[in-house]
Parts: sequence; C-alpha cells; structure tokens
Amino acid sequence: MILAQAPDGVPTITRGDDLAARLAPVLAALTWPDGSRGLAEGDVVVVASKVVAKAEGRLVAARDDAEREQVIAGETVRVVAERSRPDGGVLRIVENRQGLVMAAAGVDSSDVPAGTALLLPEDPDDSARRLRRGLHARFGVRPGVLVTDTAGRPWRRGLTDMSIGAAGVRVLDDLRGRRDAYGRELKVTVVAAADEIAAAADLVRGKATGRPVAVVRGLGHLVTTEDGDGARALVRPPEEDMFRRGSDL
Amino acid sequence: MILAQAPDGVPTITRGDDLAARLAPVLAALTWPDGSRGLAEGDVVVVASKVVAKAEGRLVAARDDAEREQVIAGETVRVVAERSRPDGGVLRIVENRQGLVMAAAGVDSSDVPAGTALLLPEDPDDSARRLRRGLHARFGVRPGVLVTDTAGRPWRRGLTDMSIGAAGVRVLDDLRGRRDAYGRELKVTVVAAADEIAAAADLVRGKATGRPVAVVRGLGHLVTTEDGDGARALVRPPEEDMFRRGSDL
Repeated sequence: MILAQAPDGVPTITRGDDLAARLAPVLAALTWPDGSRGLAEGDVVVVASKVVAKAEGRLVAARDDAEREQVIAGETVRVVAERSRPDGGVLRIVENRQGLVMAAAGVDSSDVPAGTALLLPEDPDDSARRLRRGLHARFGVRPGVLVTDTAGRPWRRGLTDMSIGAAGVRVLDDLRGRRDAYGRELKVTVVAAADEIAAAADLVRGKATGRPVAVVRGLGHLVTTEDGDGARALVRPPEEDMFRRGSDL
Repeated sequence: MILAQAPDGVPTITRGDDLAARLAPVLAALTWPDGSRGLAEGDVVVVASKVVAKAEGRLVAARDDAEREQVIAGETVRVVAERSRPDGGVLRIVENRQGLVMAAAGVDSSDVPAGTALLLPEDPDDSARRLRRGLHARFGVRPGVLVTDTAGRPWRRGLTDMSIGAAGVRVLDDLRGRRDAYGRELKVTVVAAADEIAAAADLVRGKATGRPVAVVRGLGHLVTTEDGDGARALVRPPEEDMFRRGSDL
C-alpha cells in the first residue's frame, strides 16, 4: 500500500530560507494511520519547485508582458514548437536550460508578487540533494527527495506534475530482464517512477493551496542510500528525440 | 491523505469474463488501515487495459513480426513520427483508433500467449462504464473507474500510465477561476487528474506482477455520480495540437 499526504501549515518561504529547517516542523507533525509520526526510512518527500526556487532567490523583475518575454527568452535554449495565439502573441513550447520542454521555459508567473516572475531552481538535482541532507540531519532518516514542476503534454489535455530534481530516488525503475506470466522477457519496460510519484503527490497537494510539500510512504524499494543520478536522467537525450525538426525519416 | 493498494490473487482473465464478477472477490477482501474492508463511496478502481481487453476478447493472431506489423497498421489512423531502427525496421509513433498517440498503436505483445497480440478495448470509456455498473451492483457503492495503459513521452525517458477510459471520475480538474495567495486568478491550471491517478495506481500495481487492479482512496472530490465524459476528454483535439506537421508558424 502507498500513502500520501500533504500537510497544511507550511510557512511562507522566502529568499535565503533553509528549506529543510522551514519544512521540518510540519513534516515532524505528520501522523500516519499506524500511529507513527514524522518521516520514516523509505519515505519520499516531494516538494514543489516553486518553494525551492523562492528559497533560492529565483524571483526576478517582470513588470509587464515584454519583460516577462525577455525573462522567458533568457531561460530558453531551443524553440520546440510555436503557433500564433488569437490575441496576436505567440505560444511557444521550448527547451529550457534545465533540459525541460515546456511552455514559458518553466518561468512561473502565478502565486508570485505582482511585477515579478519566478525562475526554476538553477540545478534542481542539487536542490534535492541539499534538502535531503538537511532532512537527514534533522530526522536521522534518509528519505528520497523529489522537486517537481507542472507541464502540459503534446497530445493530452491537462497538466501533470513531473520530477525535475531528485536525490535518493530510483527515478527510472528498469524492469527489463524480468519475465511476464508466459516466461517472455519484458523488453521495453522502464517506468518513469519519479514522474509517477510526482503525479501522486500532486493529487494530495493540489495547486495554490498552501501545501507545497507531500510525503509518499510505501515506495521504499525506490529509495536508495546514494543520491544517485537525479532527475536529469529523465530528460530524453537529443539522439532519442523523434520530434526534433528534421529527425523524421 | 490518499491510500492506494493493488491486491494479489486476481484470477486470470479470459475472453467473455464478466470483469466485475472476476474482480469482486479480491476487491471485497481489501483491508484498509481504519479496519474497513472492500470498496467505499469515493474510491477509484483503476484497472489495466490489458485485462479489460482480454475479457473483451481482443486477442488476435500475430504469428510473426510481419503479422504484428499488419495488426498495428490496422489500429493506426495517423503516423505522428517515425525513424529508422538500428535493426533495419522502423520505429513509429502513431495515433490509434482511440485517439491515443503511442508506439505500436497500443497493440500489446507482452504477457500474451505466443503468436498473439492484444488490441486495446474498442471503447475504453464504455468498458469503464460497464465495470462501474457491475461493481455498483455487487458493492452498493459507485466507485470511479479508470482503464489505464502505459505510454512513453516525447521528451522524457521512461513510461508512465495514463487513463484511456473513465467513468465517474472528473478526468480534468479545472481550477481556473480560483485565486492564488496574491489574489490573482489561476489562468491555465487544468489538472489531468485521471492521468495522475493512473500514475499513482501504477506505482502500487507494477508491471507483470499479476496485480492488474488498484484501488485509490481519498479522492472522493474527483468522483461523480454521473459517468461523465470519460477519458476521451483527455485527448487533445487536432486544433490544439502544436506538433502536427505544418502546424508551426
């Protein structure tokens, strides 16, 4: 069984905050159906990139649409697709400096002070590792940590959360080599476990609800002692990308 | 808090099986941390398309690679991308008859008898509605039902589960109109809740583990009395698709 919960009462996070210190009291107060409290070995702590970025001082000025476009351009390394919008602007799906393909390069204009925009953490895997160290120091256990963001999909409506930073989580669960019920080897089954955990966490966290952190219990088989490769391993490298211009047969 | 579990002991499902009747005993035996058993109002029952398809007799002959290619071609309505494979074949991402964009058109060659392939359910939303009716008749509660399948993503490594059929689940959770902590309206936040539930269920079900069904508890706000639009509403219509050939500026 897996259990996931997102505590209320997380304090407002601002530039320079020690995220582990700020989150520790609400995480320590979590109660579980078996009567236990706080964090346990094998838990995964899933935190929205928004609060990580705020702690890391990633708010920048964006006083109007033109400045916001400038900020987005600065985070963009490649335009993946674009089309005209009814309002005369241009909608662009771009690859950003973290290797993520998303609208607006991951620049966040909601739930930030007027006249500002929020960049993603510079290195979300490093953010995850630091939060993990801080939680380990406070709780004596070594949970997995995921930093998540929200994105659309090309052929599916609606947004889902994905993992953009990770420490101590087997982000790709490689089942190749196992056999099906007929004894044949599973060939192509590598599960993006960290993205599925991010999705599960989003269901309990919600958006703009003041619950930027969730804890998922019951996935200890995906939590590792070492910090591991991080969520960067979830980014498909260019040579595997079938949707680059000119990559078709 | 959400809880998710996938029971062992699901019997082998074959053509003509009444899926609700086959699943009912293992679902009735589920135990929950509060001591309750079985299904409750507000639960979501998440079932892999594989067993739905088997119950619906969707196994077809595919004795060799050429026949398998023929089967896939029959399910394909549009080639979205293709590239040569090192072995001389062609890897194609296609749109299938259910409107889903995936490799092999959703034709499943794992965990099926040798010489066969498994098509997706003809109408997965209808499959979900029928399973929901069958569960309601047996349990007296009206859980949400999702039928799920596994797919890759263009720019992310690894597979995640998504919802291809739904009954009684608000598949898109539309948060537009709510306000952020600064009083500004959330503009683009429509969450693909059914896909996030599918992902959470996959974490407890696993692949080829003999656990094709999961129950997710704690998301009653997404479960509706009416069957609703189904997962078809998650398929992005062509006019919103930025990755059709020729759709760029």
